[in-house]
Amino acid sequence: MKVLKTISEYRAWHLQLPKKANLGLVPTMGNLHLGHQSLIEASLQNNEFTVVTLFVNQIQFNSSLDFEKYPRTLDADLELCQSLGVDVVFTPEHHELYPKGHSTYCEVQNLDNYLCGLSRPGHFQGVCTIVLKLFNITKPTTAYFGQKDFQQVRIIEQLVLDLNLEITISRELIIREASGLAMSSRNLRLTEKERENSASLFKALSKAKLAYTNNERESEKLSQIVKEHLNLTSNDKIEYITIASQQSLQPLMEKINEPVVLAIAVYYGKVRLIDNIILE
Amino acid sequence: MKVLKTISEYRAWHLQLPKKANLGLVPTMGNLHLGHQSLIEASLQNNEFTVVTLFVNQIQFNSSLDFEKYPRTLDADLELCQSLGVDVVFTPEHHELYPKGHSTYCEVQNLDNYLCGLSRPGHFQGVCTIVLKLFNITKPTTAYFGQKDFQQVRIIEQLVLDLNLEITISRELIIREASGLAMSSRNLRLTEKERENSASLFKALSKAKLAYTNNERESEKLSQIVKEHLNLTSNDKIEYITIASQQSLQPLMEKINEPVVLAIAVYYGKVRLIDNIILE
Repeated sequence: MKVLKTISEYRAWHLQLPKKANLGLVPTMGNLHLGHQSLIEASLQNNEFTVVTLFVNQIQFNSSLDFEKYPRTLDADLELCQSLGVDVVFTPEHHELYPKGHSTYCEVQNLDNYLCGLSRPGHFQGVCTIVLKLFNITKPTTAYFGQKDFQQVRIIEQLVLDLNLEITISRELIIREASGLAMSSRNLRLTEKERENSASLFKALSKAKLAYTNNERESEKLSQIVKEHLNLTSNDKIEYITIASQQSLQPLMEKINEPVVLAIAVYYGKVRLIDNIILE
Repeated sequence: MKVLKTISEYRAWHLQLPKKANLGLVPTMGNLHLGHQSLIEASLQNNEFTVVTLFVNQIQFNSSLDFEKYPRTLDADLELCQSLGVDVVFTPEHHELYPKGHSTYCEVQNLDNYLCGLSRPGHFQGVCTIVLKLFNITKPTTAYFGQKDFQQVRIIEQLVLDLNLEITISRELIIREASGLAMSSRNLRLTEKERENSASLFKALSKAKLAYTNNERESEKLSQIVKEHLNLTSNDKIEYITIASQQSLQPLMEKINEPVVLAIAVYYGKVRLIDNIILE
């Protein structure tokens, strides 16, 4: 496995690949968990070459404290990639991707007006910009994203379509802990009590899905079911429970008449968790 | 010469090129004049293949009337391209590049805060977005831009750098009519009197350059020289006379101590003309 830190090193590696090689990309901010592992495995199964990027992208953070506190576990990440059979880990420094004078940004309008976009101004612009840069550098044929960040993968799909990039975006299923809690780097920051309660996210989403399967189509009622099944203390807070169009991400306030995602963001103490379930 | 209207036709053509072929791109809005011709000739001289795009990009216009009035001369444009030896003309319809739901935009911040950016909000975002799309579709090794739109070519250079595109941007010199007037599709809209007076743009810029060569370094004095040598009637109006850093495009208000461009925008009647001269 090659560990490359500069764009020119990466380009030299890429240049010697066969012309039509399938190249899978798994862009990450490191601190790899089983969710990332499933993306890497999907890439390894379907491509001759797999590249994992480890880069904590400062411009997508809404607070510099949050950026600084983001867990960095490079040695463990490299070990995992090596053991899985990854071909290249690209792990550039900040100044390699954002040299002095960098001033180009990319955004997908409208799709960032909902869900997490509401509370995180600029976040998706930061995501779009880094993902576009990493696409241009690594030149994948397929890129892998987890469906836990439903809005993110929907935005990246639109970016690829609108900018006429010849890259397939592969959405992978949410990987969960035994309790049902979706895998996230943030789970480590939960107290024991918060961890216990946060298992209710998936249970609540599943209850709503059951009702949907039993023909409940009132958006308000399904949201109510989620709310009722969440375990929260007075330190916890719901940011949103939203039923949104899978295509436009616009909330459906009344009758559900198209494929939707039921998405949720909850603060357990200071830890913001997101999860979602598909209703279709 | 192939005339292609769809992205998939273009991709099929591009796929059969030799792997490391040099491909020159000349992106235009059509209505080709000698300025465009010099870009095409530069590309033909330096590349195995040359692609010219003809596409009036609605999203970079500040008024829909201006967009509708933009001259379309497809037959003459194709004839010129054919006679010069262009390999492919790519001339898509609006919906081919902007299908329903398109919502991704790209911008170079800061560099669009000056010069023409001041009076044309959103213009350079429209330019960046279409140029990035055309780059992604046509996959050139070099793209050719005229230096008349100094700010545009500077912005595109930054875009390519920041987004890690492997494309060389080639700046070509301004091509002028015998009078000194810079070639532009808009020149056709000038009245005889306006045409006569607008020749003073280049003369005025040249007078300032002469003063600069003779060691005048006061920004204000050089601007004053331009102002004094412009022929204007009461129907005409200066939009700006600005001495700006070639790198940052920031105006230099006092002493000139770096490579600058002396740029000017003037309305002759209803026709907005731009021109510039390099001082270094």
